[in-house]
Amino acid sequence: MIDMLEKLKEEVFQANLDLVKYNLVIFTWGNVSAIDREKGLVVIKPSGVSYDNMKASDMVVIDLDGNIVEGNLKPSSDTPTHLELYKNFKEIGGVVHTHSTYATAWAQAGMDIPIVGTTQADYFYGDILCTRDMTPQEIETAYEKETGTVIIDRFKGINPVHVPGVIVKNHGPFTWGKDAHDAVHNSVVVEQVAKMAFIAKSINPNMTMNNHLTEKHFNRKHGANAYYGQ
Amino acid sequence: MIDMLEKLKEEVFQANLDLVKYNLVIFTWGNVSAIDREKGLVVIKPSGVSYDNMKASDMVVIDLDGNIVEGNLKPSSDTPTHLELYKNFKEIGGVVHTHSTYATAWAQAGMDIPIVGTTQADYFYGDILCTRDMTPQEIETAYEKETGTVIIDRFKGINPVHVPGVIVKNHGPFTWGKDAHDAVHNSVVVEQVAKMAFIAKSINPNMTMNNHLTEKHFNRKHGANAYYGQ
Amino acid sequence: MIDMLEKLKEEVFQANLDLVKYNLVIFTWGNVSAIDREKGLVVIKPSGVSYDNMKASDMVVIDLDGNIVEGNLKPSSDTPTHLELYKNFKEIGGVVHTHSTYATAWAQAGMDIPIVGTTQADYFYGDILCTRDMTPQEIETAYEKETGTVIIDRFKGINPVHVPGVIVKNHGPFTWGKDAHDAVHNSVVVEQVAKMAFIAKSINPNMTMNNHLTEKHFNRKHGANAYYGQ
Amino acid sequence: MIDMLEKLKEEVFQANLDLVKYNLVIFTWGNVSAIDREKGLVVIKPSGVSYDNMKASDMVVIDLDGNIVEGNLKPSSDTPTHLELYKNFKEIGGVVHTHSTYATAWAQAGMDIPIVGTTQADYFYGDILCTRDMTPQEIETAYEKETGTVIIDRFKGINPVHVPGVIVKNHGPFTWGKDAHDAVHNSVVVEQVAKMAFIAKSINPNMTMNNHLTEKHFNRKHGANAYYGQ
Repeated sequence: MIDMLEKLKEEVFQANLDLVKYNLVIFTWGNVSAIDREKGLVVIKPSGVSYDNMKASDMVVIDLDGNIVEGNLKPSSDTPTHLELYKNFKEIGGVVHTHSTYATAWAQAGMDIPIVGTTQADYFYGDILCTRDMTPQEIETAYEKETGTVIIDRFKGINPVHVPGVIVKNHGPFTWGKDAHDAVHNSVVVEQVAKMAFIAKSINPNMTMNNHLTEKHFNRKHGANAYYGQ
Repeated sequence: MIDMLEKLKEEVFQANLDLVKYNLVIFTWGNVSAIDREKGLVVIKPSGVSYDNMKASDMVVIDLDGNIVEGNLKPSSDTPTHLELYKNFKEIGGVVHTHSTYATAWAQAGMDIPIVGTTQADYFYGDILCTRDMTPQEIETAYEKETGTVIIDRFKGINPVHVPGVIVKNHGPFTWGKDAHDAVHNSVVVEQVAKMAFIAKSINPNMTMNNHLTEKHFNRKHGANAYYGQ
Repeated sequence: MIDMLEKLKEEVFQANLDLVKYNLVIFTWGNVSAIDREKGLVVIKPSGVSYDNMKASDMVVIDLDGNIVEGNLKPSSDTPTHLELYKNFKEIGGVVHTHSTYATAWAQAGMDIPIVGTTQADYFYGDILCTRDMTPQEIETAYEKETGTVIIDRFKGINPVHVPGVIVKNHGPFTWGKDAHDAVHNSVVVEQVAKMAFIAKSINPNMTMNNHLTEKHFNRKHGANAYYGQ
Repeated sequence: MIDMLEKLKEEVFQANLDLVKYNLVIFTWGNVSAIDREKGLVVIKPSGVSYDNMKASDMVVIDLDGNIVEGNLKPSSDTPTHLELYKNFKEIGGVVHTHSTYATAWAQAGMDIPIVGTTQADYFYGDILCTRDMTPQEIETAYEKETGTVIIDRFKGINPVHVPGVIVKNHGPFTWGKDAHDAVHNSVVVEQVAKMAFIAKSINPNMTMNNHLTEKHFNRKHGANAYYGQ
């Protein structure tokens, strides 16, 4: 059974290196995972391993309860957050967490990244939401799992496939996608739109965008009659 | 007939790669085209092809009505905007569209990039204008063509050769020039002056520039007695 | 005796080069030192030597009174500040000084870098403090030594191991750690959190962070039951 | 006679390439010159030549009246400004002009770069001054020469060796030094302090620095008893 995850481990390994390539991480401040839905197993970056020395075989295999199924290293300490996302967002196949500069700054500001451009609308059907403050109890008990909880709370009534990312207040962005590669792609998008929204807000704090533009851009790429980038 | 466009395809291909070289694009978020005015044919980047894998032979040849004349790939989804520009701005030979960071931020802010420096005046005879909001109907019908329409509207009474670029509200910059290379050059200029104007506005929201400086800088480079950079 | 410091000289040399690698210095605007606590000797970068030409053997060995024990070059002019830190913060093994862009800007602003994110809390148990203005007398007499004095003053009642860095008003950051490598690591952290706090403050001047988050992040990494990045 | 300028041409050529190395220029937006005071001859970058293709032998030799003494290319169009500086600031040996991002933004804002950090004080004895608006007549007649005039005007009562640079309103920085290399060094400093002052001003618009710090930092490097970086 384990051998069949070699491909997924390679994908997760490459996706973790892509965080470095796209300047989304410093040191070990990021992690990527992916899930094999049939087997119910998740492959995730090990904890505290430098990107320089990491190998595909270092990836850790866990089940959805967090039990280590394969691997000699500890899984990323953010693992319980990844697992909450996989358990609640059934359509997603990969998850990324970073402390990328501009997205993290919006998280520190405690504000949603407003949708004011078509770049964001090409990927996100609306604002990139910021979670609420965590309660002292959530922080002091199962902190990383509860980080998942506040994300799930924020998505009540929202399709996570239409809004493939979130910023956790005072912490940083989580993104997801159909696989690890797609989730990294979305983390690049979040960082870039976070940067552009910061600059735009500095230029004009009262900026707005017509909803019709959001509809058009999102649907021409993701709708039933998608024709963009196909 | 087609063979005679090989040179133009090579130029358009190189100009697209230059967008990467000058850090104006992420992923496939940009496109360059050029026109052969005699033949009435346009060469443009294909849709959704990664810059890493792109070849000169992937460039798509279309006529001014958007019919594919040569090429196995779909032309960029922004093609109808390029065609509107070629049809209305008779002197231009190349068009570039990007979502470059600072120019796009001004587009999201919905504001003209004010002319406050000689760097801008060396290339633009005044502000870099932002288009109006598109109507719901413009967005929902022929969106990409109508994106061209709002640009044309904005240039009523303005010579597009004197102001070789625009920012489309909530979207991003389009630039043009005598050929693909020149249009890319102008897209680099727009991004740089957008960045400097953002910083300058943060330092002094009431900044101004004497009109005489605009006249002087534009004319010493583009006027009848040009002597700058010759 | 001297031979036994070769390893420390190599470490300090590499740590100085890391300042360049992490984009923390321009020209010679930075210096790293480390201490051998048993011998009471400090190894520090020489003054005014370009990073391009520097060799491990150029590192200068001094005692805690600043007397040169080995080396043909003058020690960094910031040496007296390093020595004050080693004499007063007994647990530290390495010190770094840079004029890195964002941390220096906070120093020029004369403000503490507020703790508004978990990135900072992973390394700093609270704000990164800014020192008070130096008195004319402090400036005009033993300026570099007194720069150490204002740092020591600011840490009254604060454990320097819990807050491994400071910004000196109108000057720039000093960081420390268990060795030279760790001190450089902390100088990278200070620069990155300085950048994110600047952006976050621009987005929302009233941003705040729950103290419980600081406790949690600092303790899961540095507390008795640390489990993060282990 | 001409052969004796080969060394100076090589120096000016290398200094021009350093503008690219230090990210101070885009395209051909910068120029460096140096003077041989004994011969009264100036070596300067040619006009409109790409840095990629430039050779040391392309440097143009002119006299202080702007007559070409050697060289097949036109001297930089900013040459008359360089000449005014050499004629009025007798101690300087090299001049640099760029449109570097942050320094140019301060020029566009029309404001002096305030001295709020020791980084600036290490090189500049006070603010980096912004020139006044040029009159329509100054712009329309000998524009580039008059650009020199407004700089000279601004330095009435100020020693240009103590303040080795200026920002020309709505245009960009000029710096100078004892030779071409030193002038480039100062242009790097101006850009970096311009960036830090912009960030610091955004964080705290009311920032200040004690004059004693300026005195100390400038004098420990440039005064009679200089000991910094020696």
